[in-house]
Amino acid sequence: MALESAVGEVAIEQNLKQFLLVLSVSLSVATLPQVFSWFRHIPYTLLLVIAGLGLALVDVRLVNLSPELILAIFLPPLLFEAAWNLKWSNLKQDFIPICLYAVVGVLISIAGVALGLNLVAGIPLTTALLVGASLSATDPVSVTALFRELGVDKRLTTLMEGESLFNDGMAVVAFSFLVALPLGKAQLGIQPVVVQLFTVVGIGLAVGGLIGFGISYLTQRFDLPLVEQSLTLVSAYGTYIIAEELGGSGVIAVVTVGLILGNFGSRIGMNPRTRVIVSEFWEFLAFFVNSIVFLLIGDQVRFVDLAENLTIIAVTIAGMVLARAIAVYGLGFLSNRLANSDISLPEQTILWWGGLRGSVSIALALSVPSILSEREDLINTVFGVVLFTLLVQGLTTKPLLEKLQLLGDQPLRQQYLEFIARQTALKRVLEYLGQVEERPGLEPEFYRYQETLIKGELQRLEEQIDKLHNEYPNLRDFTAEQLRTELLSVEADTYAEFVRSGRLNQELAPLLEDVLEDGD
Amino acid sequence: MALESAVGEVAIEQNLKQFLLVLSVSLSVATLPQVFSWFRHIPYTLLLVIAGLGLALVDVRLVNLSPELILAIFLPPLLFEAAWNLKWSNLKQDFIPICLYAVVGVLISIAGVALGLNLVAGIPLTTALLVGASLSATDPVSVTALFRELGVDKRLTTLMEGESLFNDGMAVVAFSFLVALPLGKAQLGIQPVVVQLFTVVGIGLAVGGLIGFGISYLTQRFDLPLVEQSLTLVSAYGTYIIAEELGGSGVIAVVTVGLILGNFGSRIGMNPRTRVIVSEFWEFLAFFVNSIVFLLIGDQVRFVDLAENLTIIAVTIAGMVLARAIAVYGLGFLSNRLANSDISLPEQTILWWGGLRGSVSIALALSVPSILSEREDLINTVFGVVLFTLLVQGLTTKPLLEKLQLLGDQPLRQQYLEFIARQTALKRVLEYLGQVEERPGLEPEFYRYQETLIKGELQRLEEQIDKLHNEYPNLRDFTAEQLRTELLSVEADTYAEFVRSGRLNQELAPLLEDVLEDGD
Repeated sequence: MALESAVGEVAIEQNLKQFLLVLSVSLSVATLPQVFSWFRHIPYTLLLVIAGLGLALVDVRLVNLSPELILAIFLPPLLFEAAWNLKWSNLKQDFIPICLYAVVGVLISIAGVALGLNLVAGIPLTTALLVGASLSATDPVSVTALFRELGVDKRLTTLMEGESLFNDGMAVVAFSFLVALPLGKAQLGIQPVVVQLFTVVGIGLAVGGLIGFGISYLTQRFDLPLVEQSLTLVSAYGTYIIAEELGGSGVIAVVTVGLILGNFGSRIGMNPRTRVIVSEFWEFLAFFVNSIVFLLIGDQVRFVDLAENLTIIAVTIAGMVLARAIAVYGLGFLSNRLANSDISLPEQTILWWGGLRGSVSIALALSVPSILSEREDLINTVFGVVLFTLLVQGLTTKPLLEKLQLLGDQPLRQQYLEFIARQTALKRVLEYLGQVEERPGLEPEFYRYQETLIKGELQRLEEQIDKLHNEYPNLRDFTAEQLRTELLSVEADTYAEFVRSGRLNQELAPLLEDVLEDGD
Repeated sequence: MALESAVGEVAIEQNLKQFLLVLSVSLSVATLPQVFSWFRHIPYTLLLVIAGLGLALVDVRLVNLSPELILAIFLPPLLFEAAWNLKWSNLKQDFIPICLYAVVGVLISIAGVALGLNLVAGIPLTTALLVGASLSATDPVSVTALFRELGVDKRLTTLMEGESLFNDGMAVVAFSFLVALPLGKAQLGIQPVVVQLFTVVGIGLAVGGLIGFGISYLTQRFDLPLVEQSLTLVSAYGTYIIAEELGGSGVIAVVTVGLILGNFGSRIGMNPRTRVIVSEFWEFLAFFVNSIVFLLIGDQVRFVDLAENLTIIAVTIAGMVLARAIAVYGLGFLSNRLANSDISLPEQTILWWGGLRGSVSIALALSVPSILSEREDLINTVFGVVLFTLLVQGLTTKPLLEKLQLLGDQPLRQQYLEFIARQTALKRVLEYLGQVEERPGLEPEFYRYQETLIKGELQRLEEQIDKLHNEYPNLRDFTAEQLRTELLSVEADTYAEFVRSGRLNQELAPLLEDVLEDGD
């Protein structure tokens, strides 16, 4: 057709088609657990890796794009989303262990893997160190996806996500220093390394901070929901690109801007309704990108190359798991001495075993310049180890959580809250029905009938709630702070509902934000 | 940095940077009306065109991408969003005039422009017909953006959007037939043209229908909000590409799939909450894409080329405006005879003057094969005319609406609904406060204080509402159907609120959907 012939550049259209294909496969995988209930035990992301492996096995390669490009496009939004949802107050509470894990932990991991490869497998130290550095950082994307899907409790998730989001800077510095070594470019000595570390991290923090606070103050000056939503997207990519251009860590810059906008900017600059929409948007974007990334990780695997490097991969896994044990338990012990709140031994065990490697490790391995002769082996080793962490560690983390009793009474609490939600909803519906009773053109019988139906449903619910209350008396536990948030959200939701039903053209800024603020 | 060197393909990174730049400029333009209140009279999309023109004037060209590629990426989501939001019931009511405008109107437009150019400016008939065909279809993107921003009433918007979404198929067929003529490829005669028309439209409808109903039934079988949201995005691009590959109209296919999913699929397959999130997502996507498209339309203009073609452009505009007058008033008269509900003369005037041309016209002109020697002149003419419709017609449509009194008591009704929304919200907050009063760990004084504050606010509101009621007694007008929708949305919103505040892990399917259905 005419319009089609207008599409000059076939390449991008080809990419679009490939992405649509990848997405269609991923979405089909997402519906699998609905059809075969057995699949419900496997987190979605891991199911995608397995599906990708299946495709790779029959040599169906979905995408011709280079994996490093895919990561450069997909990493910023995933990091931003994770940081946006990380609560600063939680992060602050565990500042000491997170710093220890993110900085010292990376060094221990590098040393462990490198020593293992050098001593056991006889790999030259320079290569061994590169493998170690590639695998030293836990992957924020994989870890976040796994921990969220498993419903791990908030503190453990904060610890793990916090470490994963911040250790990249350290890993990237170590890696780029080690890459320069065999090329004779790096200056040896502690001082240049420390200077380089501070430069890379500093530029990342500065760019992220400037853009984050800049946008925060800008959005405070106007109330344009769609513009504010767009700005979060622009800031995720923009910060990453600018920080990298200036020689800093793009990862750290994105994490910084995400933390600032999620914890500060969205609170001072966005009305609650906008905040909710933006969060939903990022949740979708993360799902969307994860759907592509994890399928492609599986699909990129070359089994022949993996088989050739099996011994090295096994040694690397052993070194990595051992080094992480030392790091987690050792630094955990240290942190429990230094910080106020302890990390229990079962929690440390989860931190140890749940520390998956993923896209960041692959990106680092792929960035080794092709002059280095060990490049191919290095990439294969890293791919093998990443697959091991995703499939073996990823799939066994849930049983481990259950065994360590860290999932707790989550299901019970969830059921209770479902009842409460249904009760609140139906009460509200009844009250609403009462409000509109005098509306002209409606039969009173119509109301009565609806009312009876709803009241019947409500009574059934209340009996169930009473039963739960009697069985577990300590279920109700809320705070004043939560209440205020709830009141605000009731107000914001009402406006949203009016907008949706077409009775209002635009969102109203909540009144109660100011009113209740006075009550503090 | 290491990660940056991993980005192999510089081209796509370059494109990403360009898009970020374009977006930053667009978002800055979006904030202009906040700073200079004078700009508030200009719709956002037109402001973007003007900003783009400004940049073109100082020869700042933001993007190197070919415009036809930009349109191929941006057209599907914009069409899908417009169709998703078009109510089938409204469309059905105005089926006759929309069909007349979309089919016969396009023919009249082509003939008018071609005759004008041929008789007045002496342009060869083949070229004149091509210009006419390029400009025969009103642009759904521009029209939708303008009419929504102006708050034009629903029926007029439906008429205009319906025509714009459906006339593309006709225009594309006419255009591709006329392009083939000078190349000696086309068979003359009515029969092949009609066959071609039915093929192109038929394939579009078939592909859109199959994918639309397929996805509708698929999503009915499971409740996975994020998957369903992704499927809408996949379907928008997928339908377009597949229809074009099969030789059908991608535009018609996307419109069909959007109509089906928006009116049918989202109702049977999505829970109400998902539907809202998906609608919000598409609203954002449309804003996002429009922000890029309209700025680029302005930025692509070459003033020198336009100046050279000024006479032809003027003649084309005259022919186009005249032809549309004949089409709108003539077919309007015919439609008023045939259909049940009349289109008043002031409404017809708005349909005539508000029929902007936009991206579809530009895409058609750009798709002329470069073998045709008139290609450059044709593109420049179309660009000039599109600019005229956007800037002159676009900017004068609002005054015209006011003059014809078609904006009506919209502002008053809006204000009333704002008050009602605020009142409902605060009442609900009070009731909520009452419900949680017995919550342990909270001081009774805390409640009392909050309660007093909210009640004060509520009283102030009620006084304002009473005042409005007294002044305009016929303001309250709702129906039984609306009520049920509202009750359902109250329930759905409550669950959504529980999910947002983290008290529920997943959305609950509404109880009342079944319960109230029984009451019918």
